[in-house]
Amino acid sequence: MPLQPHMKLISVDDHLIEPPDVWQDRLPGRYRDAGPRIIEVGEARNQVWLYQGQQYPTLGLAAVAGRAADQIHNDPTRYEQMIKGAYDPVARVGDMDLAGIQAHLLFPTFPRFAGTLFLEGADRELALLCVRAYNDFLIDEWCATAPDRFIAMALLPLWDPQLAAAELERTVAKGAKCVAFPENPTPLGLPSIHTDHWDPLFAAAQAHDVPLCMHFGTSSLRPPHSPDAPWGVIIALMGANSIFAAVEFVFSPVFQKFPRLNVALSEGGIGWMPYIMERLDDTWARHRYYAGIDSPQPPSQIFREHIHGCFIQDEAGIAMRHTVGVNNIMWEGDYPHSDSLWPNDRKNLEQVLADVPDDEAHRIVELNARDLFHFDADLA
Amino acid sequence: MPLQPHMKLISVDDHLIEPPDVWQDRLPGRYRDAGPRIIEVGEARNQVWLYQGQQYPTLGLAAVAGRAADQIHNDPTRYEQMIKGAYDPVARVGDMDLAGIQAHLLFPTFPRFAGTLFLEGADRELALLCVRAYNDFLIDEWCATAPDRFIAMALLPLWDPQLAAAELERTVAKGAKCVAFPENPTPLGLPSIHTDHWDPLFAAAQAHDVPLCMHFGTSSLRPPHSPDAPWGVIIALMGANSIFAAVEFVFSPVFQKFPRLNVALSEGGIGWMPYIMERLDDTWARHRYYAGIDSPQPPSQIFREHIHGCFIQDEAGIAMRHTVGVNNIMWEGDYPHSDSLWPNDRKNLEQVLADVPDDEAHRIVELNARDLFHFDADLA
Repeated sequence: MPLQPHMKLISVDDHLIEPPDVWQDRLPGRYRDAGPRIIEVGEARNQVWLYQGQQYPTLGLAAVAGRAADQIHNDPTRYEQMIKGAYDPVARVGDMDLAGIQAHLLFPTFPRFAGTLFLEGADRELALLCVRAYNDFLIDEWCATAPDRFIAMALLPLWDPQLAAAELERTVAKGAKCVAFPENPTPLGLPSIHTDHWDPLFAAAQAHDVPLCMHFGTSSLRPPHSPDAPWGVIIALMGANSIFAAVEFVFSPVFQKFPRLNVALSEGGIGWMPYIMERLDDTWARHRYYAGIDSPQPPSQIFREHIHGCFIQDEAGIAMRHTVGVNNIMWEGDYPHSDSLWPNDRKNLEQVLADVPDDEAHRIVELNARDLFHFDADLA
Repeated sequence: MPLQPHMKLISVDDHLIEPPDVWQDRLPGRYRDAGPRIIEVGEARNQVWLYQGQQYPTLGLAAVAGRAADQIHNDPTRYEQMIKGAYDPVARVGDMDLAGIQAHLLFPTFPRFAGTLFLEGADRELALLCVRAYNDFLIDEWCATAPDRFIAMALLPLWDPQLAAAELERTVAKGAKCVAFPENPTPLGLPSIHTDHWDPLFAAAQAHDVPLCMHFGTSSLRPPHSPDAPWGVIIALMGANSIFAAVEFVFSPVFQKFPRLNVALSEGGIGWMPYIMERLDDTWARHRYYAGIDSPQPPSQIFREHIHGCFIQDEAGIAMRHTVGVNNIMWEGDYPHSDSLWPNDRKNLEQVLADVPDDEAHRIVELNARDLFHFDADLA
């Protein structure tokens, strides 16, 4: 019995949908109109966010946990059509209890998974207040409901690495365990990780031992596909973004400069890691003298020392766990998104981990996340 | 001893460099000037191809087999700096003998791996003659040197599926075993595989049981990367193009319309296949009702019935070979490119296949390729 009752499930990739008042409750009066608020549009009275004059739809796929596959779609939606645990922390804890899940690590929805929406709009002072308001809501309101059940991931003002470092420090001081960073900043118009631009942020993250959480899709890129490819092609290929992110970080100067910095990849799975570690090593062995990748360590070693992945099912990754590194693997529930198996998470893990020894299963479902995020067992 | 002396190595991804006279010897007089020919440029007298007024450099990486890693670079080069087996079939057979390799499947160099260079230039009549001239050179001259040692892959006039089907039939009649097709036609300005555009070609390929060979890079796309990423990032990630191609084909109507059509992916490795098969099945199970992928069979089954891969080293793929499908795996030597381990191919395979039973090793190094390409053992 690889998944025993005393093993608590810690999921490192879940999502919350911000209630309508997150920003309206926290922004100063002069910013309430321009700050994010919910309005209703069209005959269907779909609810959309309005921010700095732009409308942003709420999408159905963001809150469908527990629905049968033929009831899943991506049409615009309204709060009352969503599962309540999507936007209400008390209901969320109830849903976690129902599935036997100890903790969720929460990604935002309206701000996008790395807060990159706040790169849009001309008013950067408002944007900074919005980033802080989300973090205050997350830590002081949502996670405070049940501190032993939620891992707080702070958003950063990504347009300014000094401000980002300061927000990291402000939020870590009151309980944030990690920060969101885009899997690749360049498609967002920001400098690459191959420059020194991000050093102030990476230095702060290393100093506080705070991992960078990189959810797939946060670069804004979709993997290459034919313009008329069915939507399923894009869904199936989104994990390639995690592959791109891992390869860029391993072949960048980041881990040479910040040897204790950690990266946690979200939602891309782990089954590709053995393949890409080998490919990195082959590339390094054959091409390092002219291809800008002349690191002293083999890249697979750099990968295992710094990069952590998570999975929902991923039998291939679990079968190859000793190549990936048992300590580099965590579990994710992805509640309330469409890939979530909620409320059958434990049942799924019992199957996926059926051939995994107890100690390894415990590391994968709970202990690795506790170590990486300093999320203490004695809280639980 | 998994790799026994009686097992003959058949490599399904190698390259030839066209001698300077391939087109000059075969084009009608009126086309000799505009047709491909070698000229010398600059102080270094580097040799470049000239075609329809455009210059195309010859690159060093194309012919470096056997060189130490610190002697590999991608500068322009001259024929006499290349290993002779790159452009001379008799020298090639000698190099194959030296390494204990029975057969090579040859991709072109100047025309690009799927002949997509002949999509460029205004004169389509010349382009068609150039495609035919390459195929005639390959089959009548190169492969005729030693028919039991070379698998002939024909190029196609990709701008016209009817012409492509006709060229497939013309070349198969005189010995071609497969045809080149780009991993994704849309970045080349051609219609996607999700349309009916390619049906005449795919129908001819199915009728003659001729696999489509898709070498990575043939879409002209590089995988997404930061503009200032080191070159090693692109090298390490090129296999992602094979992932994209496999996913698009499995989620396209192609295999529903042509249930006996086969695809052979080249140079992308196989270690990613278990991961993507699972991801395809998860995507299909959760999203097929709205995401345009409502096939009757699970996509992993479609994958195994139609898609074949090959590897150079790829310990991860070999460890997971029963998930990939032992009959779907072939070996490639990649002579004379920089990833080639020549002349240590057998030594490498002895290590990679050390834990593989004899019958599976034989399928992987020889028999799968003989079956897929109808490359008969009695020729050998």
